Amino acid sequence: MSNVHALSARKADYDIHPLFTGRWSPRSFRNQPIEDAALFSLFEAARWAPSANNSQPWRFIYAKNGSQTWSSLLGLANENNQRWATNASVLIVLVSKTSHVRNGDSEPSPLRNHSLDAGAAWTNLALQATHAGLITHAIGGFDREKAREVLAIPEGFHIEILIAVGYQGERSALPEDIQLREQPTPRKALAGFYAEGRFNFSE
Amino acid sequence: MSNVHALSARKADYDIHPLFTGRWSPRSFRNQPIEDAALFSLFEAARWAPSANNSQPWRFIYAKNGSQTWSSLLGLANENNQRWATNASVLIVLVSKTSHVRNGDSEPSPLRNHSLDAGAAWTNLALQATHAGLITHAIGGFDREKAREVLAIPEGFHIEILIAVGYQGERSALPEDIQLREQPTPRKALAGFYAEGRFNFSE
Repeated sequence: MSNVHALSARKADYDIHPLFTGRWSPRSFRNQPIEDAALFSLFEAARWAPSANNSQPWRFIYAKNGSQTWSSLLGLANENNQRWATNASVLIVLVSKTSHVRNGDSEPSPLRNHSLDAGAAWTNLALQATHAGLITHAIGGFDREKAREVLAIPEGFHIEILIAVGYQGERSALPEDIQLREQPTPRKALAGFYAEGRFNFSE
Repeated sequence: MSNVHALSARKADYDIHPLFTGRWSPRSFRNQPIEDAALFSLFEAARWAPSANNSQPWRFIYAKNGSQTWSSLLGLANENNQRWATNASVLIVLVSKTSHVRNGDSEPSPLRNHSLDAGAAWTNLALQATHAGLITHAIGGFDREKAREVLAIPEGFHIEILIAVGYQGERSALPEDIQLREQPTPRKALAGFYAEGRFNFSE
């Protein structure tokens, strides 16, 4: 449905794979159960992300809508995010391991790029979701301290983002104030992202 | 050529888009010039990555092989990485902005997830490269202090990774010790990446 809208509203200056402009972050989820196979194929895509020394530091903690632990994950989101995330099929907390034992070492070394690598896994997940006709929305506004406590996340794991995954619903099903935001976001001009030879950005 | 090898060696448990298993990080680059259109289509794919409040904190500083600034980027890599990166078509330093001014605010707010978002942009770039028949290899082993100085990267921008991009060469063209590593990396078992309801990982 609104993927058509998404694609037409997002014009790339250069020819790229349609998955990249096809992926956006709707808030209108249609409360519909997700099968394990559909969910695990998202973790599967994430699994093949690149990482420093192939350390694979990403870990996903999830709860399906209606399951025993659903409310404990939904309860992490800020109230404004709970209003729409309540209709997601699954919520996922992404955490990343901050150190690992390298081959041949006895002591762990810090993983400087654990968050960057977690972002790689998250993006694979989101693009695979787009490919499979699912939608995703990353939530930064959630209670990380509470997440650590409620989900029993030990030290040595950094809490990254909360991710809503599910099936796209009608825009009109959203509360009116949220409907206004229900459209693919634009981007800055391409030339603002690259510079040759040295840093040369106005912002 | 070795993409065939890559695909057959990487078996996914669940059906996913072939781009994810098709992307890997060879070291054998065939020193061949890259056109602006091919390079900019990589930044274009990165442009559409998701980010917190659509802040788009990623910036790319690049040098093409043979250009005036090439040696200053190649010189950032550890010596062992320089041995193979010298045949890349372009080297890119990825940096991320650590704060931004949100709509309606006068003061900047910290971007907690700037590295995660940069990882999203990097992954889009890498997958688009795979789609276009190019190869990528992220380098963590480089001199970040020197990068800040040589590339004039101001405070407020975090230095993430150095990225080699180019055309895949023969494995046999690599120095012998590097040839041994010239194959797609495996992954941990899928079940080690997800847990339901609470943190439950052995590593």
